[in-house]
Amino acid sequence: MPHPIVQAPLAGGPSTPALAAAVSAAGGLGFLAAGYRSPDDVRADIAAVRALTAAPFGVNLFVPSPEQADPAAVDAYAARLAGEAERLGVRLGVPADDDDAWRAKLAVVAEERVPVVSFTFGLPSAATIARARAAGAYVLVTVTTPEEASAAHEAGADALVAQGIEAGGHRGGFTDDAGDFGLLALVRLVLRRTPLPVVAAGGISDGAGVAAVLAAGAVAAQVGTAFLRTPEAGTNAPHRAALAAGDRTAVTRAFTGRRARGLVNRFLEEHTAEAPAAYPQVHQLTAPLRAAARRAGDAGSINLWAGQAYPLADETPAGELVARLGADARQALAETARRLSGGHR
Amino acid sequence: MPHPIVQAPLAGGPSTPALAAAVSAAGGLGFLAAGYRSPDDVRADIAAVRALTAAPFGVNLFVPSPEQADPAAVDAYAARLAGEAERLGVRLGVPADDDDAWRAKLAVVAEERVPVVSFTFGLPSAATIARARAAGAYVLVTVTTPEEASAAHEAGADALVAQGIEAGGHRGGFTDDAGDFGLLALVRLVLRRTPLPVVAAGGISDGAGVAAVLAAGAVAAQVGTAFLRTPEAGTNAPHRAALAAGDRTAVTRAFTGRRARGLVNRFLEEHTAEAPAAYPQVHQLTAPLRAAARRAGDAGSINLWAGQAYPLADETPAGELVARLGADARQALAETARRLSGGHR
Repeated sequence: MPHPIVQAPLAGGPSTPALAAAVSAAGGLGFLAAGYRSPDDVRADIAAVRALTAAPFGVNLFVPSPEQADPAAVDAYAARLAGEAERLGVRLGVPADDDDAWRAKLAVVAEERVPVVSFTFGLPSAATIARARAAGAYVLVTVTTPEEASAAHEAGADALVAQGIEAGGHRGGFTDDAGDFGLLALVRLVLRRTPLPVVAAGGISDGAGVAAVLAAGAVAAQVGTAFLRTPEAGTNAPHRAALAAGDRTAVTRAFTGRRARGLVNRFLEEHTAEAPAAYPQVHQLTAPLRAAARRAGDAGSINLWAGQAYPLADETPAGELVARLGADARQALAETARRLSGGHR
Repeated sequence: MPHPIVQAPLAGGPSTPALAAAVSAAGGLGFLAAGYRSPDDVRADIAAVRALTAAPFGVNLFVPSPEQADPAAVDAYAARLAGEAERLGVRLGVPADDDDAWRAKLAVVAEERVPVVSFTFGLPSAATIARARAAGAYVLVTVTTPEEASAAHEAGADALVAQGIEAGGHRGGFTDDAGDFGLLALVRLVLRRTPLPVVAAGGISDGAGVAAVLAAGAVAAQVGTAFLRTPEAGTNAPHRAALAAGDRTAVTRAFTGRRARGLVNRFLEEHTAEAPAAYPQVHQLTAPLRAAARRAGDAGSINLWAGQAYPLADETPAGELVARLGADARQALAETARRLSGGHR
């Protein structure tokens, strides 16, 4: 890649073929989010990217969780949300067993020979990783602890996405309560544990941030929040407005039953303490609430995913942003190396 | 400074004149912790450093908290700890108003014309900062959020220590519940908010980590945990052993009533959920417990402060460590800049 920038998949709305294509065409690595999409939609998205650019790109898949949520906890949370549903004039969603069409999407990325495939929320089996590689994919696994990194290495991953606690959106580790490492410490610990290339993710929104993780030994920076306000992203209007106005961020299970970082709003403040670890059940429960709130422009009731460095994001077009991040990172590294060598004894 | 390495103050045992002098003599900036020490002991420590090296060094002071703890919460926690005291054969300490001899220590560092003074746990008044500067000190204020950084700038600080959530020991912000930013995001956000030089602290234990924060724009890295196992540090034996064996770290108020990161042990697991925000009252309550447990070599009952990157720490002598961190940081920056410039279009 001409620029060491990987676009975070940004499932749940912001991911678009236009965004992935713009990033890849500019010399970064664009990504499509397969999560929450049907296999047919994923196939159509892949075709749409290919219609826009011949550059390589990636597709991210959610690994189904083997953990079983406590049905009583889900019921109790549903009771708590009844008032929210009434106010918004919708019914809560119905929790159901759902593996997000895991096998069908694996088949799609293999059939389409997608150049890069990344996995989030779990470690696929060694056989699954081997099949993806046999279909021509370079395979990335998202990790949040050194132990997860070792396991991904043993399972045959080509490289790792090391996600720090700064990151916006869902924690991507193998379990809901996995690591809370700051990115820099995580990158150093992971590089000590495995020989795999590491893509660093979490709170990186400008060129100096990219430079920092490269100096720490990462091969690239995964950037998410910085793309949310680009014109190519599918980010909804209240989310865009909230990113521009800004408040602090926090980690919550309130929207989906799995820990994720977003801007603090009314829903997050009212429900975080009571929200159970139950994904995708809570995601399913709240989906109609969030859809209705988006339609109503009600930013207090939707998930406003954002990383800790979100104030650095702006509305620059995605391709320009990739070029700027790359150029600024190069400049920061060159200047810092020069400054330090002046101090050499 | 020949090496962009600031030694974290390491109050509560690890701080020694030998450690500060070794770091400063090697070309870093050594620090003495004034916290928990008497003014006379601080004065003696300063003289001891000066007897060992003519190089500049710093002294760190705890700023007294204006917040009042809830006496009922302190009493309830004391009741909870009664069994711990009985088991260890000591009485709990008595919570008392205590400003850690704030004014007397300010007078000591001014009279001794200490070259660098850093503040933790709060923002001194503009007048206090001005007096320290008038006595020849370069003044650093520890911050954990961009807002604290702006306030420190307005109060007249010369520079900031930006402490990320990765850091071992106490959170150094102005209030107990201040920021939980990852270091890299914090450094970028702080540099956008103020023109002050930033020393980056938290989870930095090797040269590539130092290189990363320099590339992010910091003028130096503050390194703490990496010095805990050096022969010059006053770290107690069970703490040293725990750092070598290792478990995960967590943030807790269990030992002192103020959030701090340490290795997870029995005491932390049993009491974190119930420990109130009440510093220094909880520190005073538990002091006899911790002293007895240290004497007994009972690592399950003492505060094992450690940053998230503690597995990277080893027993290298402090001066050697400073030189290694500096050399490795230079090498990492030079190699990364070279690698990136090769990719330039």
